[in-house]
Amino acid sequence: MYKQAIVIRTDLEMSKGKMAGQTAHASVSAYVKVEHKEPEIARAWLNQGQKKIVLKVGSESELFEYFELCKRAGLIGDVIHDAGKTQLTPNTPTAFGIGPAKEEEIDKILGKLKLL
Amino acid sequence: MYKQAIVIRTDLEMSKGKMAGQTAHASVSAYVKVEHKEPEIARAWLNQGQKKIVLKVGSESELFEYFELCKRAGLIGDVIHDAGKTQLTPNTPTAFGIGPAKEEEIDKILGKLKLL
Repeated sequence: MYKQAIVIRTDLEMSKGKMAGQTAHASVSAYVKVEHKEPEIARAWLNQGQKKIVLKVGSESELFEYFELCKRAGLIGDVIHDAGKTQLTPNTPTAFGIGPAKEEEIDKILGKLKLL
Repeated sequence: MYKQAIVIRTDLEMSKGKMAGQTAHASVSAYVKVEHKEPEIARAWLNQGQKKIVLKVGSESELFEYFELCKRAGLIGDVIHDAGKTQLTPNTPTAFGIGPAKEEEIDKILGKLKLL
Protein backbone atom coordinates (compact mmCIF):
# COMPACT_ATOMS: atom_id res chain seq x y z
CA MET A 1 0.00 0.00 0.00
CA TYR A 2 1.29 3.43 -0.96
CA LYS A 3 0.56 6.62 0.86
CA GLN A 4 1.56 10.23 0.92
CA ALA A 5 2.34 12.30 4.00
CA ILE A 6 2.00 16.05 4.30
CA VAL A 7 3.69 17.67 7.28
CA ILE A 8 2.57 21.20 8.15
CA ARG A 9 3.64 23.81 10.70
CA THR A 10 1.11 24.82 13.33
CA ASP A 11 3.19 27.66 14.79
CA LEU A 12 2.38 30.14 12.02
CA GLU A 13 -1.23 30.92 12.93
CA MET A 14 -2.45 30.10 9.44
CA SER A 15 -6.21 30.05 8.95
CA LYS A 16 -7.75 26.66 8.16
CA GLY A 17 -8.18 27.76 4.54
CA LYS A 18 -4.54 28.72 4.33
CA MET A 19 -3.50 25.40 5.86
CA ALA A 20 -5.69 23.51 3.43
CA GLY A 21 -4.12 25.40 0.51
CA GLN A 22 -0.57 24.77 1.70
CA THR A 23 -1.39 21.09 2.24
CA ALA A 24 -2.72 20.84 -1.30
CA HIS A 25 0.36 22.60 -2.65
CA ALA A 26 2.65 20.14 -0.85
CA SER A 27 0.55 17.21 -2.01
CA VAL A 28 0.64 18.20 -5.69
CA SER A 29 4.37 19.06 -5.60
CA ALA A 30 5.37 15.76 -4.04
CA TYR A 31 3.07 13.87 -6.41
CA VAL A 32 4.57 15.59 -9.46
CA LYS A 33 8.11 14.70 -8.29
CA VAL A 34 7.21 11.06 -7.72
CA GLU A 35 5.33 10.90 -11.02
CA HIS A 36 8.47 12.11 -12.76
CA LYS A 37 10.86 9.69 -11.03
CA GLU A 38 8.65 6.69 -10.28
CA PRO A 39 5.59 6.90 -12.50
CA GLU A 40 4.39 3.39 -11.67
CA ILE A 41 4.24 4.23 -7.95
CA ALA A 42 2.39 7.46 -8.65
CA ARG A 43 -0.15 5.58 -10.77
CA ALA A 44 -0.61 2.80 -8.22
CA TRP A 45 -1.25 5.37 -5.49
CA LEU A 46 -3.93 7.09 -7.59
CA ASN A 47 -5.56 3.73 -8.30
CA GLN A 48 -5.50 2.83 -4.61
CA GLY A 49 -7.48 5.96 -3.79
CA GLN A 50 -4.71 8.43 -2.95
CA LYS A 51 -4.25 7.53 0.68
CA LYS A 52 -2.74 10.46 2.54
CA ILE A 53 -2.16 11.72 6.05
CA VAL A 54 -1.69 15.28 7.25
CA LEU A 55 0.70 15.59 10.20
CA LYS A 56 1.84 18.53 12.26
CA VAL A 57 5.08 19.99 13.57
CA GLY A 58 5.50 23.01 15.82
CA SER A 59 8.44 24.88 14.28
CA GLU A 60 10.52 25.52 11.20
CA SER A 61 13.44 23.57 12.62
CA GLU A 62 11.25 20.55 13.29
CA LEU A 63 9.88 20.80 9.72
CA PHE A 64 13.37 20.66 8.22
CA GLU A 65 14.55 18.02 10.67
CA TYR A 66 11.87 15.58 9.51
CA PHE A 67 12.26 16.51 5.87
CA GLU A 68 15.99 15.75 6.07
CA LEU A 69 15.29 12.38 7.69
CA CYS A 70 12.93 11.56 4.83
CA LYS A 71 15.45 12.61 2.20
CA ARG A 72 18.20 10.59 3.86
CA ALA A 73 15.91 7.56 3.71
CA GLY A 74 15.59 8.09 -0.05
CA LEU A 75 11.99 9.31 0.05
CA ILE A 76 10.90 11.82 -2.59
CA GLY A 77 9.24 15.08 -1.66
CA ASP A 78 9.32 18.84 -1.56
CA VAL A 79 9.25 21.70 0.95
CA ILE A 80 6.69 24.44 0.25
CA HIS A 81 7.52 28.09 0.77
CA ASP A 82 4.62 30.48 0.90
CA ALA A 83 4.59 33.29 -1.66
CA GLY A 84 3.58 35.54 1.20
CA LYS A 85 0.85 37.52 -0.53
CA THR A 86 -1.48 36.94 2.40
CA GLN A 87 -0.99 36.14 6.08
CA LEU A 88 2.72 35.17 5.99
CA THR A 89 6.13 36.73 5.35
CA PRO A 90 7.27 35.91 1.78
CA ASN A 91 9.18 32.65 1.41
CA THR A 92 8.16 31.18 4.77
CA PRO A 93 8.55 27.38 4.75
CA THR A 94 5.10 26.09 5.70
CA ALA A 95 4.89 22.40 4.87
CA PHE A 96 6.40 19.48 3.05
CA GLY A 97 4.96 16.59 1.11
CA ILE A 98 6.53 13.12 0.91
CA GLY A 99 5.59 10.39 -1.51
CA PRO A 100 3.53 8.54 -2.47
CA ALA A 101 5.83 5.84 -1.16
CA LYS A 102 5.47 2.55 0.70
CA GLU A 103 3.38 3.13 3.81
CA GLU A 104 5.89 1.38 6.12
CA GLU A 105 8.77 3.52 4.88
CA ILE A 106 6.86 6.71 5.61
CA ASP A 107 5.64 5.51 8.99
CA LYS A 108 9.17 4.53 10.03
CA ILE A 109 10.19 8.19 9.92
CA LEU A 110 7.00 10.17 10.42
CA GLY A 111 5.05 7.70 12.54
CA LYS A 112 5.57 9.58 15.79
CA LEU A 113 4.11 12.85 14.51
CA LYS A 114 0.53 13.71 15.40
CA LEU A 115 -2.31 14.15 12.93
CA LEU A 116 -3.27 17.76 12.19
CA MET B 1 -2.60 33.28 -15.36
CA TYR B 2 -3.86 29.84 -14.46
CA LYS B 3 -5.31 28.85 -11.14
CA GLN B 4 -7.04 25.97 -9.47
CA ALA B 5 -10.09 26.18 -7.21
CA ILE B 6 -11.02 23.73 -4.51
CA VAL B 7 -14.55 23.96 -3.15
CA ILE B 8 -15.20 22.24 0.17
CA ARG B 9 -18.27 21.65 2.34
CA THR B 10 -18.30 23.25 5.76
CA ASP B 11 -21.50 21.52 6.95
CA LEU B 12 -19.84 18.18 7.71
CA GLU B 13 -17.95 19.15 10.87
CA MET B 14 -14.68 17.86 9.50
CA SER B 15 -11.57 18.62 11.56
CA LYS B 16 -9.06 21.01 10.02
CA GLY B 17 -6.78 18.05 9.29
CA LYS B 18 -9.60 16.24 7.53
CA MET B 19 -10.43 19.35 5.51
CA ALA B 20 -6.79 19.79 4.55
CA GLY B 21 -6.63 16.15 3.41
CA GLN B 22 -9.83 16.41 1.36
CA THR B 23 -8.58 19.65 -0.19
CA ALA B 24 -5.33 17.97 -1.18
CA HIS B 25 -7.23 15.01 -2.61
CA ALA B 26 -9.39 17.33 -4.74
CA SER B 27 -6.34 19.30 -5.82
CA VAL B 28 -4.38 16.24 -6.97
CA SER B 29 -7.40 14.68 -8.70
CA ALA B 30 -8.24 17.80 -10.69
CA TYR B 31 -4.57 18.31 -11.54
CA VAL B 32 -4.24 14.74 -12.83
CA LYS B 33 -7.33 15.18 -15.04
CA VAL B 34 -6.05 18.44 -16.50
CA GLU B 35 -2.57 16.99 -16.97
CA HIS B 36 -4.14 14.18 -18.98
CA LYS B 37 -6.32 16.39 -21.17
CA GLU B 38 -4.36 19.64 -21.35
CA PRO B 39 -0.77 18.92 -20.35
CA GLU B 40 0.52 22.32 -21.42
CA ILE B 41 -1.90 24.10 -19.07
CA ALA B 42 -0.95 21.77 -16.20
CA ARG B 43 2.72 22.49 -16.79
CA ALA B 44 2.23 26.26 -17.07
CA TRP B 45 0.33 26.26 -13.78
CA LEU B 46 3.14 24.40 -12.02
CA ASN B 47 5.67 26.85 -13.43
CA GLN B 48 3.58 29.81 -12.31
CA GLY B 49 3.69 28.55 -8.73
CA GLN B 50 0.47 26.52 -8.50
CA LYS B 51 -1.91 29.35 -7.67
CA LYS B 52 -4.95 27.99 -5.90
CA ILE B 53 -7.89 29.12 -3.83
CA VAL B 54 -9.94 27.14 -1.32
CA LEU B 55 -13.61 28.13 -1.23
CA LYS B 56 -16.51 26.96 0.87
CA VAL B 57 -20.10 25.86 0.38
CA GLY B 58 -22.60 24.96 3.07
CA SER B 59 -24.31 21.85 1.70
CA GLU B 60 -24.09 18.87 -0.64
CA SER B 61 -26.62 20.44 -3.02
CA GLU B 62 -24.60 23.64 -3.24
CA LEU B 63 -21.46 21.57 -3.89
CA PHE B 64 -23.06 19.80 -6.85
CA GLU B 65 -24.74 22.96 -8.12
CA TYR B 66 -21.40 24.73 -8.51
CA PHE B 67 -19.68 21.65 -9.87
CA GLU B 68 -22.34 21.34 -12.57
CA LEU B 69 -21.95 25.01 -13.50
CA CYS B 70 -18.20 24.44 -13.88
CA LYS B 71 -18.71 21.35 -16.02
CA ARG B 72 -21.23 23.15 -18.23
CA ALA B 73 -18.63 25.86 -18.78
CA GLY B 74 -16.20 23.20 -20.00
CA LEU B 75 -13.94 23.33 -16.95
CA ILE B 76 -12.16 20.13 -15.92
CA GLY B 77 -12.39 18.77 -12.40
CA ASP B 78 -13.51 16.06 -10.04
CA VAL B 79 -15.77 15.57 -7.04
CA ILE B 80 -14.18 13.81 -4.05
CA HIS B 81 -16.08 11.24 -2.03
CA ASP B 82 -14.67 10.34 1.34
CA ALA B 83 -13.81 6.70 1.95
CA GLY B 84 -15.45 7.14 5.33
CA LYS B 85 -12.89 5.32 7.46
CA THR B 86 -12.83 8.22 9.91
CA GLN B 87 -15.27 10.98 10.81
CA LEU B 88 -17.68 10.65 7.85
CA THR B 89 -20.21 8.20 6.42
CA PRO B 90 -18.62 6.24 3.54
CA ASN B 91 -18.93 7.87 0.12
CA THR B 92 -19.87 11.34 1.41
CA PRO B 93 -19.14 13.99 -1.24
CA THR B 94 -16.85 16.44 0.54
CA ALA B 95 -15.20 18.68 -2.04
CA PHE B 96 -14.40 19.26 -5.68
CA GLY B 97 -11.36 20.55 -7.50
CA ILE B 98 -11.47 22.53 -10.75
CA GLY B 99 -8.54 23.26 -13.01
CA PRO B 100 -5.92 24.57 -13.33
CA ALA B 101 -7.72 26.75 -15.86
CA LYS B 102 -7.74 30.41 -16.83
CA GLU B 103 -8.29 32.51 -13.72
CA GLU B 104 -11.11 34.57 -15.29
CA GLU B 105 -13.04 31.46 -16.32
CA ILE B 106 -12.93 30.08 -12.80
CA ASP B 107 -13.81 33.42 -11.20
CA LYS B 108 -16.80 33.85 -13.53
CA ILE B 109 -18.45 30.84 -11.92
CA LEU B 110 -16.95 30.54 -8.46
CA GLY B 111 -16.17 34.21 -7.82
CA LYS B 112 -19.07 34.71 -5.44
CA LEU B 113 -18.07 31.91 -3.07
CA LYS B 114 -16.23 32.81 0.13
CA LEU B 115 -12.71 31.69 1.01
CA LEU B 116 -12.50 28.86 3.54
